[in-house]
Amino acid sequence: MDRIPILRMGEFLLVTIQIDMHDRLALALQDDLTNKIAQTGARGVLIDISSLEVVDSFIGRMLANIAAMSRILDASTVVVGMQPAVAITLVELGLSLEGVRTALNVEKGMELLRASLNGHWKGRLHDPAQA
Amino acid sequence: MDRIPILRMGEFLLVTIQIDMHDRLALALQDDLTNKIAQTGARGVLIDISSLEVVDSFIGRMLANIAAMSRILDASTVVVGMQPAVAITLVELGLSLEGVRTALNVEKGMELLRASLNGHWKGRLHDPAQA
Repeated sequence: MDRIPILRMGEFLLVTIQIDMHDRLALALQDDLTNKIAQTGARGVLIDISSLEVVDSFIGRMLANIAAMSRILDASTVVVGMQPAVAITLVELGLSLEGVRTALNVEKGMELLRASLNGHWKGRLHDPAQA
Repeated sequence: MDRIPILRMGEFLLVTIQIDMHDRLALALQDDLTNKIAQTGARGVLIDISSLEVVDSFIGRMLANIAAMSRILDASTVVVGMQPAVAITLVELGLSLEGVRTALNVEKGMELLRASLNGHWKGRLHDPAQA
């Protein structure tokens, strides 16, 4: 397998990470994802890591990179489905996943994205600079 | 990895198959999926195979089994994201994926499930036997 599939669901993209990430795969995912955001005009990215039993600094950095890239392309990123043991390990390792928002599961992640999109639009409509 | 994650999206479940299936993994998936349908009362199952480059008779049988089990639990199954080359190979091999409905991508698969659910409800509401 040399590609992680990216599924389009309305205005969001969903990526399920199931396999051990290595450099080439992580780069391919970043490439594919940024292209897909540009193509589809997606406003949010959900990354499901529920099947990962280990999240090390490499994965942590990859998630932060994806979030940063998506932000530049005007899409929010939410990491969903983290196992409790993974959260414990992350904190013990001192990895705080800065800049990455999380939600318990895909549904809650979508709610979070929708809420932030609505906030964004409200913010725009009520922008005093535009009034 | 010894489990394929099953994501709940509203009344549907989404399974993305990214890795080579073997006996144990296929059995685990059938187990998890039927349990999840029973737990959540899901009405539809979407199986994304967009990252599979080969679908052999083993995978074909697994998909048919999952569809049959889900049907008994009152959930419809749609296989989505099949690569064109896979469709060609399936036909050449004489595998027709009987009893398995397909859609081009997750979005179209969800539409199909929603349509069939609505049809189902309409069918119930207008059932002459109940009138």
